Amino acid sequence: MSKHGWTGDPVELLRVGDGFRLADVDADATPGFHGHKHDGERVLTHRETELDDLQERLYANRDERADAVLLVLQAMDTAGKGGIVRHVVGGVDPQGVELAAFKQPTPDELAHDFLWRVEKRLPAPGFIGVFDRSHYEDVLIGRVHGLADPAEIERRYGAIVDFERRIADSGTRIVKVMLHISRDEQKERLMERLDRPDKHWKYNPGDVDERLRWDEYMAAYQTVFERTVTAAAPWYVVPANHKWYARLAVQELLLDVLQRIDPQWPAADFDVEAEKKRLASS
Amino acid sequence: MSKHGWTGDPVELLRVGDGFRLADVDADATPGFHGHKHDGERVLTHRETELDDLQERLYANRDERADAVLLVLQAMDTAGKGGIVRHVVGGVDPQGVELAAFKQPTPDELAHDFLWRVEKRLPAPGFIGVFDRSHYEDVLIGRVHGLADPAEIERRYGAIVDFERRIADSGTRIVKVMLHISRDEQKERLMERLDRPDKHWKYNPGDVDERLRWDEYMAAYQTVFERTVTAAAPWYVVPANHKWYARLAVQELLLDVLQRIDPQWPAADFDVEAEKKRLASS
Repeated sequence: MSKHGWTGDPVELLRVGDGFRLADVDADATPGFHGHKHDGERVLTHRETELDDLQERLYANRDERADAVLLVLQAMDTAGKGGIVRHVVGGVDPQGVELAAFKQPTPDELAHDFLWRVEKRLPAPGFIGVFDRSHYEDVLIGRVHGLADPAEIERRYGAIVDFERRIADSGTRIVKVMLHISRDEQKERLMERLDRPDKHWKYNPGDVDERLRWDEYMAAYQTVFERTVTAAAPWYVVPANHKWYARLAVQELLLDVLQRIDPQWPAADFDVEAEKKRLASS
Repeated sequence: MSKHGWTGDPVELLRVGDGFRLADVDADATPGFHGHKHDGERVLTHRETELDDLQERLYANRDERADAVLLVLQAMDTAGKGGIVRHVVGGVDPQGVELAAFKQPTPDELAHDFLWRVEKRLPAPGFIGVFDRSHYEDVLIGRVHGLADPAEIERRYGAIVDFERRIADSGTRIVKVMLHISRDEQKERLMERLDRPDKHWKYNPGDVDERLRWDEYMAAYQTVFERTVTAAAPWYVVPANHKWYARLAVQELLLDVLQRIDPQWPAADFDVEAEKKRLASS
């Protein structure tokens, strides 16, 4: 295996490009990585040090109008968003992470434009923001359940593209990820939640209702990709039947965006030698 | 060594009680733990599993008006607050943690009562809130620098006690920690920041100015303990010259409060067998 166990570049392999069809993605695949679970977990741990170093450099620049990173996570239930937060994002200093979990909107949020609550949770310079669900729910569940009329859904695609362009232009690097599991895999994962009393709290009867609309959701995702992929805010579809692979892939996506920012330790804005003398005599 | 390497109970040994004198605390000590760094790190890793399990149980109850936990971290610069956040709190699922770092107040915050910005960052039920600095700055730096007149500082002690009683009564378990380093240890840690270009960003010339007021800060902390220790919101002074010990001790304080809450997996509010059938046929 080549560098870090990868035989191909997940950034290229997973990016949604022209002619992308979600229906063609094999949720069991592990594009670019030919090892097994054990290899994947070893690489994840190994690469954590680099991710941590890059994040600290980014954070060190937070007062210098540094860039920010925004990781958007979208998926069907049980696909493993929580595991990404825990095992990938959890590998860096929590002080530099701003996590936002978007639930069903409140009446106050519903009274505003759908991007109102999203704007408020954008990461500050130097931070890595993570959206566990996002404004994309407003064109996914929003479309599947008809929560807004078709003209409003149409409007939102364009609004999202404009919104993301603006925040990208103001210095936020956007990485949008759909974790893709198969319908069978979801059934197994939901069944496990029902089989284990310590997992009942994670189960909601509504999960089956949503599952029954699987094809509608896949169609809604397909439209999302067609309408909201931009150079400034690319989409990546990550096969997620193997949790270890999904974590490894998202780690590489974060490493890639941080490497492209290439944050440097900021120069001291004080006289180092003078401070050493002051400190020594204090 | 007894259970988990501890020979004494840090909850008892570190709690601020009647007649407590900060000046008597040895910042080099490791009360209740007689092992060395290597032993401490092993125990920290070992106990992480239990902390993680308890946190998940707490979080599972977040919709049931569960208790919350609030960990308040106060310390002189370089004492290791960040390391606690990283290595102790970082051991549990980030989705269940609400971290609030209180910096110098904004003009808007200053225009309100000092507890206004604090109230907004209190953890929701089921969450562990961590305050990196807190409302105590308003009676520490506030007193040392005379940012408020003495009558206002006096008022604040009582206001804090009332505030903490109210949030405790509404279901938030409060654990207040001062990480205590010695003046010499701080000098070494600041010097290391000056010696290493990759640490310059963590250094601020103001750190030495604060350091020159060390005795005033210690006196302000002593008054804080005398005025704001309550059964509902105890203070713990954790010797922190050994970072590994401070992390281990705070981990035990968190374990203790979670064990006292003793959160149980919530019972399913749906018919498990019926859901299994629905899922199987979906």
